[in-house]
Amino acid sequence: METQKDSLIVLHNGFIVTVDPDSRVFRNGGLVVEGDRIKAIGQSPEILQQYSAVATEVVDLGGRILLPGFINTHVHTSQQLARGIADDVDLMTWLHGRIWPYESNMTEEDSYISTLLCGIELIRSGVTCFAEAGGQHVSGMARAVELLGIRACLTQSTMDSGQGLPLNWATLTTDYCIESQKELYKTYHNTADGRIRIWFGLRQIMNATDRLLLETRDAAKELRTGIHMHVAEIPYENQLVHDTRNVDGTVAYMEKIGLLNENLLAAHSVWVNESEISYLSKGDVKVSHCPAAAMRMLGFAPIKEMLDSGICVSLGTDGAPSNNRMSIVDEMYLASLINKGREAHTKGETNPTALPAETVLKMVTANGAKSVLWYSEIGSLETGKKADFIVVDPFKWTMVPLLDSISSLVYSMRTENIVSLMCNGRWVMKDRKIITVNEEEVLLLAQRASNDLLKRAGITIPNKMNMV
Amino acid sequence: METQKDSLIVLHNGFIVTVDPDSRVFRNGGLVVEGDRIKAIGQSPEILQQYSAVATEVVDLGGRILLPGFINTHVHTSQQLARGIADDVDLMTWLHGRIWPYESNMTEEDSYISTLLCGIELIRSGVTCFAEAGGQHVSGMARAVELLGIRACLTQSTMDSGQGLPLNWATLTTDYCIESQKELYKTYHNTADGRIRIWFGLRQIMNATDRLLLETRDAAKELRTGIHMHVAEIPYENQLVHDTRNVDGTVAYMEKIGLLNENLLAAHSVWVNESEISYLSKGDVKVSHCPAAAMRMLGFAPIKEMLDSGICVSLGTDGAPSNNRMSIVDEMYLASLINKGREAHTKGETNPTALPAETVLKMVTANGAKSVLWYSEIGSLETGKKADFIVVDPFKWTMVPLLDSISSLVYSMRTENIVSLMCNGRWVMKDRKIITVNEEEVLLLAQRASNDLLKRAGITIPNKMNMV
Repeated sequence: METQKDSLIVLHNGFIVTVDPDSRVFRNGGLVVEGDRIKAIGQSPEILQQYSAVATEVVDLGGRILLPGFINTHVHTSQQLARGIADDVDLMTWLHGRIWPYESNMTEEDSYISTLLCGIELIRSGVTCFAEAGGQHVSGMARAVELLGIRACLTQSTMDSGQGLPLNWATLTTDYCIESQKELYKTYHNTADGRIRIWFGLRQIMNATDRLLLETRDAAKELRTGIHMHVAEIPYENQLVHDTRNVDGTVAYMEKIGLLNENLLAAHSVWVNESEISYLSKGDVKVSHCPAAAMRMLGFAPIKEMLDSGICVSLGTDGAPSNNRMSIVDEMYLASLINKGREAHTKGETNPTALPAETVLKMVTANGAKSVLWYSEIGSLETGKKADFIVVDPFKWTMVPLLDSISSLVYSMRTENIVSLMCNGRWVMKDRKIITVNEEEVLLLAQRASNDLLKRAGITIPNKMNMV
Repeated sequence: METQKDSLIVLHNGFIVTVDPDSRVFRNGGLVVEGDRIKAIGQSPEILQQYSAVATEVVDLGGRILLPGFINTHVHTSQQLARGIADDVDLMTWLHGRIWPYESNMTEEDSYISTLLCGIELIRSGVTCFAEAGGQHVSGMARAVELLGIRACLTQSTMDSGQGLPLNWATLTTDYCIESQKELYKTYHNTADGRIRIWFGLRQIMNATDRLLLETRDAAKELRTGIHMHVAEIPYENQLVHDTRNVDGTVAYMEKIGLLNENLLAAHSVWVNESEISYLSKGDVKVSHCPAAAMRMLGFAPIKEMLDSGICVSLGTDGAPSNNRMSIVDEMYLASLINKGREAHTKGETNPTALPAETVLKMVTANGAKSVLWYSEIGSLETGKKADFIVVDPFKWTMVPLLDSISSLVYSMRTENIVSLMCNGRWVMKDRKIITVNEEEVLLLAQRASNDLLKRAGITIPNKMNMV
């Protein structure tokens, strides 16, 4: 899967939302891709005049919208085969009765198929880059990402302690946790034409010894990579930190031991107080907000307060059993709605002006890129950056009439509108057809693998209505 | 547009979710349509054996899901051309600066086109019946519904008082409000093969004199039809009722004057207290919950408490400038998420078991039918009821793996999965193609009408980013 070194692709006659530092939007713009990078961007007539003669491919966008590929900063690719296994159940059943038995019974092949299936949903949702939240068998994920053609920060689910772990996980040592991740880094970091990066994972503080926390901090620093961790998800977590570590809250404890650094991607971060928000801000920690999963399982994250204090907040979908749509398009819609509504919770009345569309668009592009430590190359459409973008067709029943293109992208757009996707200079989806993998084949493989895995894990799902 | 009196359509090999009083689900079911009604429903082999020889059409569902058409109990069809005119603005700008100028400048033709456009979105979202929230030019709506082929309770936007009304509305008398609606009833009620019914409208208590409230109550009773009204939307409304009518809250006041009856469909009902919930329950008032619009503009409705007290709660999308997706599919997803999350607001922690999938499915089918006073004929798949249903294809990237079909319909399904729709025994959409109207033509008409209307109304929308 080499990039096309000699290709020169010209896209013209488009509504280009650059999300660059000046928030420029070209009403009638053009963009040139050479190899895997953006060679030029500007007014359509000028781009056409300068480059069409030497182009290997010319695409007339017909007024469609071109924007940076979305970045999903928290997704469990391993859990895609588990969509529907834990709907409408309490948290303990969710974790101990369904998710852990499922994940601990996964094979490397399951991980591969699960990531392929998840990748199809990510691509159709306009995602060119994602941060794995920490899952099983990074080798399987890497095989899938290589094939899918998108970009990823892959992370192993990492725990060296905790209550009620499945047997095959309970025996994993701190040394194993650190060494196996260093090994993964050595094998997969910067592979697939540079599309794959390896990060360190910490599943959550309740499953990590202090030694694991500190050695992860140091190993990630040494290898100049990131750490992905679930942080402050439920009140019980903060209580346990208080009881066992004698500090009030996960974030406060992480501050104390020096874990709040610019390479930390903290997922959810729902139960944080004012001083913890200032710790996160001071440390330049990145926060991944997952609106759907938060509503379902966790609570209202103080996103407005975090943004106001200068924290880089991006969006994630979480995993299929927590959501169940792995659609960053829907998360944009939700993020804006829920954070407007949350004002009724904190102030007594909703605020329809809170978290406006342009902020949400930045969260899934520029902020996403900063969160995965890749902003110098992705997250906006600028000359010299990687060619990662999507084409949106707004002339459909979902978005007509088109009166405010920017807000329409957040409030009205659905996956149906995302027609094409390029990553690293290569078409991954064109006219709603995914080019890199055989979608139908993946769907069949996935249904079979999922059925087998549930049987192996002994998971049964009770009927919800009266089956006859 | 006559129904096919001699047709006998057999659908077999389907996963049929009946939503009947026993919540029966046929794993391998069959259903027979004769004329506009369901003639039989049962196990697929038996249905096939008994009816295939005499069928005019036999449809092999191939394991796809058959379920009652969804009922959207609060939608402003007039506002579809206004999608995007009022995003991220405060409530007063929303109402006085955008919505009222827009609606008061609509022509009858605008209403027709707006309803056609909205109808396309409703059909693609699986809606076979909707309740108009109260809009402009019922004659235009009726023309559109006749053509679209779905079912509707149409309602005129009705106000006889209030602050800041546009000039052409401020002069409307109470008599005109009542008489014009009686006229509409006479002309359009029970037209389009019985698919159209006419209801009375009350825009909201802040725009109604007591005489209008009482005469509406009596006229609707006399004509045996329903009343559709926005109720208890914002704290200010309750405050105004307190200040001007000397009773604490809209619902309490409506109880006092005898408006809380079984033919009242109360939209939103966000700001109601415990005793008001018991009034609504006692009066058998129906409540339309619109999760997206509530999050954006109003607040958290006490849906769990209403359901617990026996109130019939259904789902609505509200209008395009409040949401902006007119998708009951997304509202199902949102309803469950938001009401799980609301528990964090009221009790300190989310409750992932609140508002489970089967409850949400009932809200959009059986409860919807009861809310529009049509349950004897629609809202479930039962012998003798009207043939209003949809076919869902779950074997796509959005819903695979399919492990829990019932919860998948609520959490994973998207409009992409809705492939066919029948209303009143007639196919309206088949294999994702709408048969009744020319979709492309409507989109073109709608964009043009919307642009013209905004110009006429003097509405301009500021740019959200830096246009170059």
